Amino acid sequence: MNPRISDRMSNLKPSAIREILKMASPDVISFTAGNPSAETFPDRELAEAIAYILANKPAEALQYTITEGYAPLIARTKDRLAGKYGIPTGGDMIITSGAQQGIELAAKCLLNSGDAVICENPSFIGALNAFRSYGARLLGVPVDDEGMVVDAVDELLKRDGRVKMIYTIPTFQNPSGTTMSRKRRERLLELAIRHDVMLLEDSPYFELSFSGDIAPPIKTMDDADNVLYIGSYSKIISPGIRLGYALGPKWLLSKMTVAKQASDVHTTMLIMMAVDRLLDSFDLEAHIARCRELYRRKGNLMTAELDKRLGKRVRFTRPGGGLFIWGTLPENCPSLELCSIAQRHKLAIVPGMAFETTEDPASRGFRLNFSVPTEEQIIKGVALLAESIDEYLEKRGQ
Amino acid sequence: MNPRISDRMSNLKPSAIREILKMASPDVISFTAGNPSAETFPDRELAEAIAYILANKPAEALQYTITEGYAPLIARTKDRLAGKYGIPTGGDMIITSGAQQGIELAAKCLLNSGDAVICENPSFIGALNAFRSYGARLLGVPVDDEGMVVDAVDELLKRDGRVKMIYTIPTFQNPSGTTMSRKRRERLLELAIRHDVMLLEDSPYFELSFSGDIAPPIKTMDDADNVLYIGSYSKIISPGIRLGYALGPKWLLSKMTVAKQASDVHTTMLIMMAVDRLLDSFDLEAHIARCRELYRRKGNLMTAELDKRLGKRVRFTRPGGGLFIWGTLPENCPSLELCSIAQRHKLAIVPGMAFETTEDPASRGFRLNFSVPTEEQIIKGVALLAESIDEYLEKRGQ
Repeated sequence: MNPRISDRMSNLKPSAIREILKMASPDVISFTAGNPSAETFPDRELAEAIAYILANKPAEALQYTITEGYAPLIARTKDRLAGKYGIPTGGDMIITSGAQQGIELAAKCLLNSGDAVICENPSFIGALNAFRSYGARLLGVPVDDEGMVVDAVDELLKRDGRVKMIYTIPTFQNPSGTTMSRKRRERLLELAIRHDVMLLEDSPYFELSFSGDIAPPIKTMDDADNVLYIGSYSKIISPGIRLGYALGPKWLLSKMTVAKQASDVHTTMLIMMAVDRLLDSFDLEAHIARCRELYRRKGNLMTAELDKRLGKRVRFTRPGGGLFIWGTLPENCPSLELCSIAQRHKLAIVPGMAFETTEDPASRGFRLNFSVPTEEQIIKGVALLAESIDEYLEKRGQ
Repeated sequence: MNPRISDRMSNLKPSAIREILKMASPDVISFTAGNPSAETFPDRELAEAIAYILANKPAEALQYTITEGYAPLIARTKDRLAGKYGIPTGGDMIITSGAQQGIELAAKCLLNSGDAVICENPSFIGALNAFRSYGARLLGVPVDDEGMVVDAVDELLKRDGRVKMIYTIPTFQNPSGTTMSRKRRERLLELAIRHDVMLLEDSPYFELSFSGDIAPPIKTMDDADNVLYIGSYSKIISPGIRLGYALGPKWLLSKMTVAKQASDVHTTMLIMMAVDRLLDSFDLEAHIARCRELYRRKGNLMTAELDKRLGKRVRFTRPGGGLFIWGTLPENCPSLELCSIAQRHKLAIVPGMAFETTEDPASRGFRLNFSVPTEEQIIKGVALLAESIDEYLEKRGQ
């Protein structure tokens, strides 16, 4: 490490997942992605929208704009969240360069070095690294079938006086795939308000429900304006276009706008205008319904194959939506070694330690993605996983 | 200020310029922009390139990619910098979401709270705010006709043990319009190396030379790999697409990549691929020559009008390129009041304090942009400026 590197960055490593993705090779089946399926991208419609914008409003689309983002897209996004999901949109919204940027700006504006963030453990590595990059301590809370164990949050809030934020992905959590119960959502918000701590609700997957039933975002319960709601067009239109948004109290969003100004001035104007144009005519609701159906089929296929091949040897979550299934190996079986074995069997999976607040190499968890592989690859990949696990457990004498 | 805001962000205000831009109204002539002229945007060629990419590589263009950016665009950018300008490209390059992001990532990776940055005074507010947002102290160095006064840099380096970075826009500096002499460039680099301090060379305008003569970037002299070179497609293609790059030593670029991963994952893939495609067939050199000619005409017109209308009452820089002219009022005449008077005369200009490291309200400088207004607006605007200055100096009894 070069001594010129700042303290805040000196311990931060590249995301293990992105490093694994770089090693992707065509003969390896990969369950490592955090990506939506490319089948779902509305490429032709987006091409039409961009062509329209560049033909009709080139000077506006290619010029600098204000940091908050393209006002019609903000208005449209707010209207949809309010109208369809009952999310209160009285606060400020800015367009961000992907949801990741909303999380990073929140971290920059809320966290002093040594402050603590309570989060699910395991959780989304991109968010954890954003918090780490500002010197925050991560206080991980276990996740069960009802999501984050809120009793543990209560204890942490009582014990640690420097908690500044609670970070949660309440629906189809990354990486565990679990969804927080309504009761816990209410209690978590109540705890955040009582302790004067911001609740960051990261909501990239909530519409990707297999059944079509949508768990109400915590933001819908937020009469006290204490939730920063981070949303994204990545999983319902395209991640490559980097389009997300942050909705929350004015005092925070105005600061996040100043931080964004210093970070990238504004999100790509052509993309903001094109997506706004796209949504004029594109039936987003029908599109999301098709995404749901695709992920339901793939997710249920993976669950069925896991049940068939792995029976009770390994515990898997049974997500009702999203992109991920989480496996947990038996006691004393770190998943890191399973990942190496699987790699030899030409299957790539992500070890749980990548998602853990402590990056514990003894982590027994691993993440499987079902949105990107084909159905054929899911069947074959689960077979390879079963072989790998057999080999691993045999070696361990279990 | 909400007490929940982090220390690093609590004193940071929105850029005065962006706030002024929001107040733009059609009956006001504006010299406030930092924008290139919309006339120069290759909108049709970009539309074709995007259509090609979305028709032929939609899954790649709309999906997540690696944080470093689209490899062919990196290779192409390096090749051009090396081939055309002799810039050594042995270090790492990443694509950034505008040059602003390169500056912000460098600040995040290099600056601890309380560290110092030496920079021109006045300087680019976006960079100053990025440094401020990490708690850096700004050590401003005056600018004369040969650019940053390097003797003052030497003294500061001897006096202050916590200088971590020297930030400069050596060519057609924003806001002063001045260009650093070759001798000073060499000396500045030598000082940076001797004191083990990173030199951040911000180079958005260097190709926009009226004459076509290009001052060699400091990076061309950088045998010691001590310069972080920040470049941009904003002023030669379009700023709205947010496309810049950072080139520098591996130890720094690898950390900036980790920081970018936590910041926005990657720059918009569709835009990176489309610009790479555009540059396959588009004659960028001829295009830049046309930009130069346009700015030469407008810049020289503004200078001629200023000479004619304002004679010796106000001192103006005489830039050989770029987008800006800098005016300096006589002693004891803060420009803030001139800006208010000009606003009444339906002319918008930016007060110097916005660019000063100390944000001194007594600043006598002001910035004029000549790239965005039409020639008619330049003539009319300078007349309004002359009226405003007459009114101001009369009031002051000067």
